[in-house]
Amino acid sequence: MNSHPSHKRRPRRGAALLFFATLALSGPLAAQEAPSLLGFAAPNAARQLDAEARLDAMVDPANLESWMRRMTEKPFFVGSPHNYDNAMWVADQFRSWGYQVEIAEYEILFPTPKIRHVEMIAPESYVATLEEPVLSQDGTSGVDGQLPTYNAYSADGDVTAELVYVNQGIPRDYEELERRGIDVRGKIVIARYGGSWRGIKPKVAYEHGAIGAIIYSDPRDDGYFQGDAYPDGPYRAEFGVQRGAVQDMPLYPGDPLTPGVGATADAERMTPEESPTVMKIPVLPLSWGDALPLLKALEGPVAPASWRGALPITYHIGPGPTQVRIHLEFNWDLETAYNVIATLPGEEYPDEWVIRGNHRDGWAMGAADPISGHVPMMEEARAIGELAKAGIRPKRTIIFASWDAEEPGLIGSTEWVEHHAAELSEKTVAYINTDGSGRGFLGMGGSHTLESFINEVARSVEDPQTGVSVWERLHAAQSVGGGREPGDKSDIKISPLGSGSDYTPFLQHMGIASLNLGFGGESGGGSYHSQYDSFDHFTRFGDPGFQYGAALAKVTARTTLRLANADVLPFQFSPLVSNIKTYRDEVMALLEEKRNEISRTNALVASNAYVLAADPTQTYVPPPSEEEVPFINFAPIQNAITRLEQSARAYDKAYAAAFAEHAKMTGSEYAAMMTPDHRTALGRVNAALVATERSMTREAGLPRRPWFRHQIYAPGFYTGYGVKTLPGVREAIEEGDWAQASEQAEHIAATLEGLARAIDSATGMLGG
Amino acid sequence: MNSHPSHKRRPRRGAALLFFATLALSGPLAAQEAPSLLGFAAPNAARQLDAEARLDAMVDPANLESWMRRMTEKPFFVGSPHNYDNAMWVADQFRSWGYQVEIAEYEILFPTPKIRHVEMIAPESYVATLEEPVLSQDGTSGVDGQLPTYNAYSADGDVTAELVYVNQGIPRDYEELERRGIDVRGKIVIARYGGSWRGIKPKVAYEHGAIGAIIYSDPRDDGYFQGDAYPDGPYRAEFGVQRGAVQDMPLYPGDPLTPGVGATADAERMTPEESPTVMKIPVLPLSWGDALPLLKALEGPVAPASWRGALPITYHIGPGPTQVRIHLEFNWDLETAYNVIATLPGEEYPDEWVIRGNHRDGWAMGAADPISGHVPMMEEARAIGELAKAGIRPKRTIIFASWDAEEPGLIGSTEWVEHHAAELSEKTVAYINTDGSGRGFLGMGGSHTLESFINEVARSVEDPQTGVSVWERLHAAQSVGGGREPGDKSDIKISPLGSGSDYTPFLQHMGIASLNLGFGGESGGGSYHSQYDSFDHFTRFGDPGFQYGAALAKVTARTTLRLANADVLPFQFSPLVSNIKTYRDEVMALLEEKRNEISRTNALVASNAYVLAADPTQTYVPPPSEEEVPFINFAPIQNAITRLEQSARAYDKAYAAAFAEHAKMTGSEYAAMMTPDHRTALGRVNAALVATERSMTREAGLPRRPWFRHQIYAPGFYTGYGVKTLPGVREAIEEGDWAQASEQAEHIAATLEGLARAIDSATGMLGG
Repeated sequence: MNSHPSHKRRPRRGAALLFFATLALSGPLAAQEAPSLLGFAAPNAARQLDAEARLDAMVDPANLESWMRRMTEKPFFVGSPHNYDNAMWVADQFRSWGYQVEIAEYEILFPTPKIRHVEMIAPESYVATLEEPVLSQDGTSGVDGQLPTYNAYSADGDVTAELVYVNQGIPRDYEELERRGIDVRGKIVIARYGGSWRGIKPKVAYEHGAIGAIIYSDPRDDGYFQGDAYPDGPYRAEFGVQRGAVQDMPLYPGDPLTPGVGATADAERMTPEESPTVMKIPVLPLSWGDALPLLKALEGPVAPASWRGALPITYHIGPGPTQVRIHLEFNWDLETAYNVIATLPGEEYPDEWVIRGNHRDGWAMGAADPISGHVPMMEEARAIGELAKAGIRPKRTIIFASWDAEEPGLIGSTEWVEHHAAELSEKTVAYINTDGSGRGFLGMGGSHTLESFINEVARSVEDPQTGVSVWERLHAAQSVGGGREPGDKSDIKISPLGSGSDYTPFLQHMGIASLNLGFGGESGGGSYHSQYDSFDHFTRFGDPGFQYGAALAKVTARTTLRLANADVLPFQFSPLVSNIKTYRDEVMALLEEKRNEISRTNALVASNAYVLAADPTQTYVPPPSEEEVPFINFAPIQNAITRLEQSARAYDKAYAAAFAEHAKMTGSEYAAMMTPDHRTALGRVNAALVATERSMTREAGLPRRPWFRHQIYAPGFYTGYGVKTLPGVREAIEEGDWAQASEQAEHIAATLEGLARAIDSATGMLGG
Repeated sequence: MNSHPSHKRRPRRGAALLFFATLALSGPLAAQEAPSLLGFAAPNAARQLDAEARLDAMVDPANLESWMRRMTEKPFFVGSPHNYDNAMWVADQFRSWGYQVEIAEYEILFPTPKIRHVEMIAPESYVATLEEPVLSQDGTSGVDGQLPTYNAYSADGDVTAELVYVNQGIPRDYEELERRGIDVRGKIVIARYGGSWRGIKPKVAYEHGAIGAIIYSDPRDDGYFQGDAYPDGPYRAEFGVQRGAVQDMPLYPGDPLTPGVGATADAERMTPEESPTVMKIPVLPLSWGDALPLLKALEGPVAPASWRGALPITYHIGPGPTQVRIHLEFNWDLETAYNVIATLPGEEYPDEWVIRGNHRDGWAMGAADPISGHVPMMEEARAIGELAKAGIRPKRTIIFASWDAEEPGLIGSTEWVEHHAAELSEKTVAYINTDGSGRGFLGMGGSHTLESFINEVARSVEDPQTGVSVWERLHAAQSVGGGREPGDKSDIKISPLGSGSDYTPFLQHMGIASLNLGFGGESGGGSYHSQYDSFDHFTRFGDPGFQYGAALAKVTARTTLRLANADVLPFQFSPLVSNIKTYRDEVMALLEEKRNEISRTNALVASNAYVLAADPTQTYVPPPSEEEVPFINFAPIQNAITRLEQSARAYDKAYAAAFAEHAKMTGSEYAAMMTPDHRTALGRVNAALVATERSMTREAGLPRRPWFRHQIYAPGFYTGYGVKTLPGVREAIEEGDWAQASEQAEHIAATLEGLARAIDSATGMLGG
């Protein structure tokens, strides 16, 4: 508990029911100090810690192993028999643990390949194999019923053109191409994976006029350059392919045909042709084994050093002489997605929901992605269910969600969230997400209002390899990495969330405070979205013995249970403001960088330096002069942040005062004091706290993409997964749209003012 | 001419003969302002510029081409028939151009291979080919009489051991090995080229207990990763090998048997076993084609990312299971080195020498290295000879040196310098070096006293590709590269010199102001020290049409002639002081970095963070705690620099005053004024200027290596070529020898005080 004993309790102000003030007055001092836990009255903290100790003892890695083995014995992509079978089996498990279970079904667009053909027709002939070989060392490789390697939501098409190597195929790569006088109009591009979410690559290629796209896995990024290739080691081998969706998720995720509404059987639907998120050109992923002949035959300029991968060739850009034909056709069918929704109703506040989710569908054998995260969630649910059976029931309702159709575009979660938007907005306290998880260090991403909270959780779970807490181990890694001073034991900053897993509809569409948790850093590899993401691979290289899976269950169980049981929800605003100040500084610095960069470019153009410095034997097109960057009025944001700091400090003070004096109450004293009125008052405080994250959204959403409403966090329009903080203004500056930057700065200022009011409201109810 | 018209001439002070003051008083004002040229009285400047215009017209790229073809038709390493033949032919050429020519012969240790055998004996068998294939596209590949691929001054030996990959084999790589618990004692190491001069690699391997070393050319560094391999492009192909010497040159260069004295026939000699610069372990270079099977078979930890090259393998460190046998035996014979020394005596100051050199020996076909620099020097000499025949003779003596035996260790130049040390010290004004040269941008390295001078030269020569000056083109490249503001037209800083070519004995042993010049940046490739460094390679990829060779001749001819003809030698001290201040700042910052780094390391050790952050499934040895870094007294250096700044300013003022008033004299007025007394006075000024570079040396030399006497510039003890400025104190700090750092700081301070006195002396004579 973040109590500040030196702070005296302030006199009441206004009519707010001062729950903790009342409570504090009613309790005498106990003999010794009780354990402290953020948001918990002292007697409840002791009970919570006791429950956690019982829970830890229940977590059994052997369950994780047997469940993973069962779930990954056959492919389980959307629409596959084993996916349905897993859903029913997971539902049964939850039922057996005491949960109320519902299967939430949605009818979603899920294209699967009919024709896949990639062929080099010049200067030599090569037909891509498009197959992942069977390996004797991998028990499920070659198992029946696999989905072939493809990019879901590619367009149908049969195109033939010269090939151009575009590096990662992101906007700055096309600037490099322009400097070399290379145009991709009418061409097919080949991009390596990396640098952005994969769907960005064909989108940007299409924006530049390309008629087809290939995405391949360069061994530099996840193959032999990184470590031994499978089956000798965990990295991607010659013919391993990364499948994956390429619908334009930064516009909106979920079913491409039903934006903003649940894809129920009777929902109104666009056609695939009408959907703005379905790709407009054919695109297919290749292994490096299939890409090598195409790349090797390219001529034209040598690619810049940072573009070169680890294939044993000189990387040329082209265009040509490599000519490629891509022929793709898909079944544009609807498939049913099955979300398993398991509910444990809260004893005290059944209408306050803590939602905990992990997706269940995988592209192929899906051991790491997603089952390595799904089975710890099941173990967590089992343990929480056992506690409930033993009478330790949560105060708030806990909902476990086993999402379907995450892989094609966060569809299961998004449709459920869109379907139940009003109720979720009213009731959801927080959403806790996991996805694939491995061995190593705890990754903590999420809403900065939960930064202190999740740090406290991480300090309380033991790392299986070292015996210190998982927080301490992460701290050690950051210290050695230079990210912090060894002696600085203040909270670790958590990462703001972009996209890439099922928190997106909760956080960025709904404004529900979210966390995304998982272990990694010592389980690297190149099995991602290939058929080699298998039980055999994961148990050799991912998390042998499932020790980190067990640790994850302990971390997330604490997270879920503490959120479900806290007296005052453990939201804290000073860390939020501190992070927002950092983002503000970044955005302001970005504008200055743009100004300096453009001013410098213009000076270099004016002095002819680009031309003089270039090698005249190579084609070189100097960058154009650009309009000088105007100044933008950041004062409203600055003023809003000043106010926000005051609000956060006031909340801290009210919180400290409220918790200061009851720290030494006994459980029975606490119980005696807890009247229905107190409960109601507490409910109001918590409702006000929940409303703070909602206040960070804007109904109109972000420019170009109204589905994304959060004003602090969004996935980048040109990164796809990578987060953009203060996205409205940041992306406008990045793209040089100064008018939009100005307008968005005003919206952000207004949002921050609203956030300050929302915090003030919680403070007032708590007794500010 | 750097005149400052606003400076009024000061009254005389003391007894110094005020040459220019006298001169200025005797001349009336002329009608219009004369051209300005650093160190030239105005009438002489005009004459000099006229001579340069005539010289430019004489330079003919066709000469360069025909001479290169002739010189590179057969191999011309030390002791080869064609090297002798080239020497005699070059001598004849110089004679035909009007030079007095002498062949300076030295008897030097030059080992050549008798036995070369490298074999992998486990886990598989592979015998290295050690051969560079004949290519039909390369007319001299496979020509008779080649020296096999080897590292000269390797030890004899027949060793068999497990192999360890040590990256570049420099000290920090061994720290990485220590972290992984890997010891090379009793092992054979394999290092890739790069990161240091090659001789450092076996030296450091030996210091760590290795019993043999292989150095190979990774395609990442100069092979297909960089661009198309030969013969498709200029880069190193599968079986191209970099030959080269590995004697311990940072100790002393030149003949390993006669340190400090000329290796004349009757010189006293050590045996090779006694020589401290002959390597103590066997070492051989390999092509990547020969290295690949050895590296591919290595196991053990995966190499850190920065260690990985571009071979299509996972780079492992070992040790083993690769076991290698290296068997090497050499003829330890003396060979004769033939320096061609061509002299054009000065008309006015025959005992003031401007020396201009380029080496003539090559490892194989040597087109780029060294003939691409040698033939422009010849064209320069021819043109200067033609001018002399036409009556435009230099005031000072010009000596052209065609050095032999540079490749085995700067031997021809070093022996000549050691042999004639006393006379050179007395008479040499400056040394101007070139070596291999290509296409692109002018590289300017040298004594900072000549920084203003060489900038002025570079501003006056036209770039053949763009028509602007070579200075302007370099400036454009630096602007685009971010190194300077486009509008900043102040002088470009020249690079301090380490080692790697024949300036080393002049600059670092003798304290003779030196320059090293050449073009490059657009003629990259991987032919270095292979048989593919051929006429065919150079004329396709190096400098097609020899346009840059011609430009180099114009640059160096100006440099030589201006130094030979200047009234006052064009040394300037303010740029020197500015650079010394930078080096002082760097050295002081380095100590602080060391302090912070060690303090941080100790904190991480104390908190156990290294152990907690490490992957427990991998061997990891945390770094040890170290003694905290003491503070070092830099005040004497600071004070000396303060004094030095005053001295430089005083010289600037005296120089400006001296040149201010005669700017408008006519040639005849100037000639009338130039009495024998004036000449003598001028000689004294110039002798004082020459003495300034000598004052930067210290008789005792640097720690561990007394041969290196310069206190501002030295090649690094562990870089070999790479420069260390203020080397005494910098290397002591780098290596953590705090007592030595303190002591060396005092020596540097004393040297800088002496330099200030030397400048003051020149200022006094000039009329300060």
